[in-house]
Amino acid sequence: MADGDDDVPLILTWDDANNGLLEEEENGLGNYDTVNNVVIPASGVTEPRAQNSLRHSWEMNYQEAAIYLQEGENNDKFFTHPRNANALSAYLFAHNHLFYIMELLTAVLLMLLSLSETPAVPSLRLDVYVHATLELLALAMVAFELCMKLRWLGFHTFIRHKRTMVKVNMPADYFYRLNLYVLLHHDNIKFFPFCAYQHVFFCSLFLSSFRNLRQIFQSLPPFIDILLLLLFFMVIFAILGFCLFSRNAADPYFNTLENSIVSLFVLLTTANFPDVMMPAYSKNRWSCIFFIVYLSIELYFIMNLLLAVVFDTFNGVEKMKFKSLLLHKRSAIDHAFQLLVSRQRPDGVSLKQFDGLMRFYRPRMNARDCFLTFKALNQSDATMLSLQDFYRFYEVIGLKWKARRSGEHWFDELPHTVFLIFKGINLLVKSKAFQYAMYLVVAINGIWILVETNMLNDGVSWTHVVPLSYIVFLTIYGIEVFLKITGLGPMIYFSSGWNLFDFSVTVFAFLGLIALAFEMEPFYFIVVLRPFQLLRLFKIKQRYRNVLDTMFELFPRMASLGLTLIIFYYSFAIVGMEFFADVVYPNCCNTSTVANAYRQINETIGNRTVLSEGYYYLNNFNNILSSFVTLFELTVVNNWYITMEGITSQTTHWSRLYFMTFYIVTMVVMTIIVAFILDAFVFRMNYSRKNREPLGDPGDENGIVFETEVSQTEASQTMDLYKHTLRDTNLSSLHGMCAALERCGQSSLVFLGRRSRTKSDLSMKMYEEEILEWYEEYSTSNLQPDETFHRSLNSPEAEATDIIN
Amino acid sequence: MADGDDDVPLILTWDDANNGLLEEEENGLGNYDTVNNVVIPASGVTEPRAQNSLRHSWEMNYQEAAIYLQEGENNDKFFTHPRNANALSAYLFAHNHLFYIMELLTAVLLMLLSLSETPAVPSLRLDVYVHATLELLALAMVAFELCMKLRWLGFHTFIRHKRTMVKVNMPADYFYRLNLYVLLHHDNIKFFPFCAYQHVFFCSLFLSSFRNLRQIFQSLPPFIDILLLLLFFMVIFAILGFCLFSRNAADPYFNTLENSIVSLFVLLTTANFPDVMMPAYSKNRWSCIFFIVYLSIELYFIMNLLLAVVFDTFNGVEKMKFKSLLLHKRSAIDHAFQLLVSRQRPDGVSLKQFDGLMRFYRPRMNARDCFLTFKALNQSDATMLSLQDFYRFYEVIGLKWKARRSGEHWFDELPHTVFLIFKGINLLVKSKAFQYAMYLVVAINGIWILVETNMLNDGVSWTHVVPLSYIVFLTIYGIEVFLKITGLGPMIYFSSGWNLFDFSVTVFAFLGLIALAFEMEPFYFIVVLRPFQLLRLFKIKQRYRNVLDTMFELFPRMASLGLTLIIFYYSFAIVGMEFFADVVYPNCCNTSTVANAYRQINETIGNRTVLSEGYYYLNNFNNILSSFVTLFELTVVNNWYITMEGITSQTTHWSRLYFMTFYIVTMVVMTIIVAFILDAFVFRMNYSRKNREPLGDPGDENGIVFETEVSQTEASQTMDLYKHTLRDTNLSSLHGMCAALERCGQSSLVFLGRRSRTKSDLSMKMYEEEILEWYEEYSTSNLQPDETFHRSLNSPEAEATDIIN
Repeated sequence: MADGDDDVPLILTWDDANNGLLEEEENGLGNYDTVNNVVIPASGVTEPRAQNSLRHSWEMNYQEAAIYLQEGENNDKFFTHPRNANALSAYLFAHNHLFYIMELLTAVLLMLLSLSETPAVPSLRLDVYVHATLELLALAMVAFELCMKLRWLGFHTFIRHKRTMVKVNMPADYFYRLNLYVLLHHDNIKFFPFCAYQHVFFCSLFLSSFRNLRQIFQSLPPFIDILLLLLFFMVIFAILGFCLFSRNAADPYFNTLENSIVSLFVLLTTANFPDVMMPAYSKNRWSCIFFIVYLSIELYFIMNLLLAVVFDTFNGVEKMKFKSLLLHKRSAIDHAFQLLVSRQRPDGVSLKQFDGLMRFYRPRMNARDCFLTFKALNQSDATMLSLQDFYRFYEVIGLKWKARRSGEHWFDELPHTVFLIFKGINLLVKSKAFQYAMYLVVAINGIWILVETNMLNDGVSWTHVVPLSYIVFLTIYGIEVFLKITGLGPMIYFSSGWNLFDFSVTVFAFLGLIALAFEMEPFYFIVVLRPFQLLRLFKIKQRYRNVLDTMFELFPRMASLGLTLIIFYYSFAIVGMEFFADVVYPNCCNTSTVANAYRQINETIGNRTVLSEGYYYLNNFNNILSSFVTLFELTVVNNWYITMEGITSQTTHWSRLYFMTFYIVTMVVMTIIVAFILDAFVFRMNYSRKNREPLGDPGDENGIVFETEVSQTEASQTMDLYKHTLRDTNLSSLHGMCAALERCGQSSLVFLGRRSRTKSDLSMKMYEEEILEWYEEYSTSNLQPDETFHRSLNSPEAEATDIIN
Repeated sequence: MADGDDDVPLILTWDDANNGLLEEEENGLGNYDTVNNVVIPASGVTEPRAQNSLRHSWEMNYQEAAIYLQEGENNDKFFTHPRNANALSAYLFAHNHLFYIMELLTAVLLMLLSLSETPAVPSLRLDVYVHATLELLALAMVAFELCMKLRWLGFHTFIRHKRTMVKVNMPADYFYRLNLYVLLHHDNIKFFPFCAYQHVFFCSLFLSSFRNLRQIFQSLPPFIDILLLLLFFMVIFAILGFCLFSRNAADPYFNTLENSIVSLFVLLTTANFPDVMMPAYSKNRWSCIFFIVYLSIELYFIMNLLLAVVFDTFNGVEKMKFKSLLLHKRSAIDHAFQLLVSRQRPDGVSLKQFDGLMRFYRPRMNARDCFLTFKALNQSDATMLSLQDFYRFYEVIGLKWKARRSGEHWFDELPHTVFLIFKGINLLVKSKAFQYAMYLVVAINGIWILVETNMLNDGVSWTHVVPLSYIVFLTIYGIEVFLKITGLGPMIYFSSGWNLFDFSVTVFAFLGLIALAFEMEPFYFIVVLRPFQLLRLFKIKQRYRNVLDTMFELFPRMASLGLTLIIFYYSFAIVGMEFFADVVYPNCCNTSTVANAYRQINETIGNRTVLSEGYYYLNNFNNILSSFVTLFELTVVNNWYITMEGITSQTTHWSRLYFMTFYIVTMVVMTIIVAFILDAFVFRMNYSRKNREPLGDPGDENGIVFETEVSQTEASQTMDLYKHTLRDTNLSSLHGMCAALERCGQSSLVFLGRRSRTKSDLSMKMYEEEILEWYEEYSTSNLQPDETFHRSLNSPEAEATDIIN
């Protein structure tokens, strides 16, 4: 490993020598790549005066390679690749975690402001000046972010970047709006429609940064086609229903064509079902056929077709996305590899270069992990990484390294007596008997709770006396947790999701106990969370473990879909508040067909006067929180027409458009959520079937594991290398490794690298054959000479990334 | 083709010489096959006295081969294969179309009797004697059917045949019930519970004969697992809800644990959604979180998981079913092939034997078609069919043969002037302009209808004056239909589903016109079917054609699912009538929480007295038709709890069990319907993607097409063969073929065999690779010596058919 400082990078980036060439940049974008990748003459480099410049070139190359790899990871298009040192610093800044957090905070702040804006949640109302100041602050932050992006992307690219351009529009409009505020100096002025529009506009921009929204939009065209079919049948049946039932004076659902259409639209959601049929049915029993046929066609056939179409499109889009991400990563690795090889050895990356790369790519990674990662990549046991080795970069990079202990338990190094005690505990908690005893306890606890609750038939009275059973069971759970932690060691205990669940439920139960004992009323709700302990019973059966594992696996991805949904809600809430704030109130809608749901009268029953409440006035758009609840109720669909009709009776007929649009939009999103869950689950099922391994076996739970064996000589060589050539690194981790090697007394030590399994890993295995085809396709489209390497890559990438971005 | 009568079958069936051996039958089932398949000594056959017996053997072999092939087609297990001449005739009888129809009629009669049984539809009530006589008749028919089956299967097999054994139980029970009827001599005696049970029992038997019910049951275990998870969460949340909300006196939904569970069960169906939340929400706005979390977990996650699990299982079952059917067919062909080859030529089936087979397999097939089918099978152009050729039997057998005309049009042979006119019409109707003109007319018609209906806002008055627009548009459609029929020829016109649709809509519109003109009131509903004409507009876009084609393709399979559903309905209706007949009536349920839905009072509004009706008393179980409508309403789910609570208030709390069970059962069936549609649609999509051909292209519409060229010499040779060896066949079809060959003047004529594309064809293409694997698997498991051929086949078959039967 004596590759000295005389290695010359194959490609030079932003070298001083190249500075002159950078002027050519103005010629356009396409030129840029070739400019940077000019192979400098070999003769001019080995001269002593170039030595410093050479080291600098390497540093630059490491940094650019790291950026390429990051772009591959984040799925940034390469045409936004920073082009000069200024852009680079801006790029680094814009890709800083702090910057992301700032961006997010700005967005959240802007959204939260809606809580205190004019139709505000009463307790959160802010003065207009405070409000305006906060808004101004948020806008300043947006402007700052945009400046950074402009600097990174350069003007031309900046303009081509659609998402950013939408954002630019925003501060301008916001300032206009702020002016209005200040000019009118009126806190409770009603929003102007364009403000609502502005909000929606802002939301749509915010939405566009979510990847899965793109998937939603890609599923839209076929969805809309089927939707048209649905609406078409609706109109035909509306005409039919109008012709058939309008002569019945007792039938308010079909007396005009408009009512007929609205009734059938609501019927599509089944929300008015038997009621809409009843007047006609009571006249003529055969009229039920009309409704049965309508529902069979619309609800049971076309709606399912809708799901099928979305599911199908969604599946295809998922695969395309995976493919383009994969190829994008591959081309990022290609780029990085070219930057890391030297002119002397153009086929391999040495540890020195790899370490240089990692200093930029993962600044916090220590030397030992870097070395181990290099070893894990290096499958051929050569001194250098070939391109094939390097292609596995993303698989290996996330690994957490740990020496494989000679013993398995954390207490192996304790004195013998103590060891025996812990060993006993370990064997106990691992025994089947212990597990089943615990299941039994949980089951008894469950029955106990059920019986106890059932006996409290007159309502729960918080007696402030902690029930004995509570303490008994909690003690048992506490002991179990304690035994498990001591027996398995905290690391192993907490690495299992199920144990984590047990632990947190037990802690909550304990907190509940404290709340009860110290009479902290507001926390009583914790006590009632106890029954969740019962969920542990589902561990017994394999299928439930699969289902719950899938559930946990889905949560992060569901969360992003949920966020999308919240932003949809947000935009609809803003529009709703705009039009319908303070429209409904008790006894408001006596002219509508749903008057009962809003009526609030004092009724005398026997000798008591009771307030008979129609609660629907609570489903209003008076502030953003109420709006969210109302929209959730509309999402659930049942009785949504009561809200619609109530508001329609207080405003205009056109209000129905809002509700119907919302229904259709949520239908899309919900269909996609269904398709998403369906896809994830079926995928997992297929995966486990394909690999003929039970889903929940222990090996699977541990995620991906890599093994690397390090011999003593290797360790000391690496130590030397680092000491002599890479002085500035902190070497304590390597020292630790050498010490461990000496301590264990063997000639080599095995290190294990672990990481959790991601969806991408599953996909890799699922599409194994297709992936090889894709790679072939990709490499044949890249079989150009080396000089135009960068340029030639551009076209397929652009294509691939266009699909995802 | 001079294979004379001296061919000796390789395997003899029921030969006179073997009669003595048949006594061994008693030894058990397994022996049978080998007994029949004993290879008789070659020396004993060519003697003259055996000539007649030889012909008889061949006839027997043809018949048995035909039976094997039929068993393969109908997916009958081979162990029910007829074992002697008596069994054979019984088999033939039991597989007669008339027998099937009789079986079906008996079942339908028994079901229809429920219309006139005690809680009868008023107009259909029958005297108990009439009723009992009909029932007796039906039972006699069942008994007769069973006797025939007993004769065919033999006692041992009969007992092993589960489905049949269930049926045996029935007449006995029915007679018991009839006795009760006659003894008590009371027409309006209330059903005894066991009678309802009897009905359900009968239904379950009837159901078991539906294949897709089996699929439903196979999807059940995973379904039930997830269902338990669902119910578990429900109970946990019920306890939680009870603890949280029971202190609120205004909240009737959570005041007891039972109410809490029922409320959350209903909430699962969303039927009581905002209402169940409102009392708690009005007290504390944060309580909405409880409901949102509950719905998110239960409705949006676990319910979807349920769909995913069913979808996944359903898919697997579909594939297994297809596989076992395919292998069963293959083994049937193996059996048949062995019976058709002769000792002299054990590798091939000659035309003579094939014709012999077809005389039993398709008695109505004429000699020409038989010859053409033989030609189509014969890919190697040898004089005999190899086993490989013969494997394609089921693909080829359904083809309808037709000589390819030299011209394309039906009017090609008319005089020149007339020809030109028709040719003009033909070109006209095929032109794009004509089509789009028609679309335009349809669109205008649609808008016209919409506007016209919208102007009748005061209700439709049947003016007895036929509107002019109706006549104008009808005339246009009439002319279009006339032009198309004359231009394309009736055969081509009616072979397209779309044209058939146009035609029937036009005919209906014409009937409506007549109804209007002659004032036939009850038929006015035909008039309102006019807007369905608009459906034609969807032909314009490819995707709609796909969707509608899929729809049409799904209908037959949906029909069988629908039948299953009807039988489910039937059994629930019987139980419902048993318990809930005449339970609800106007003003019945004033003690329940849903009293309003049943209240019927005279209200004075202004100066008019209006009957304010709660129509829900109409949703009752008073007779089978009402029960069906009520059950449909329960299937649609919305407001189902009103029916449930109404009936519960009049009976006991346990009634809820009936409704909840029904909900869960329909949930299973509906989930399966969704999975079914999803599967069918996604399958079709994948298929079209795999074959890279647009789904709706003309070649696809025509189904499967085979081509066979027949030369003149071949035709005359076949003619001779038939004349000399197969005297009893009607040869007019062959004469026709020869004549056509001479007429066309060419040396050969191409015949086209067409049949419609079935799901099996699609599956064959989809699973292409897997099928090869399956075949290999199948053949390796059958690599035994020839003597034990039949026996060795038994095991994999039994396995395969066990899966499907």
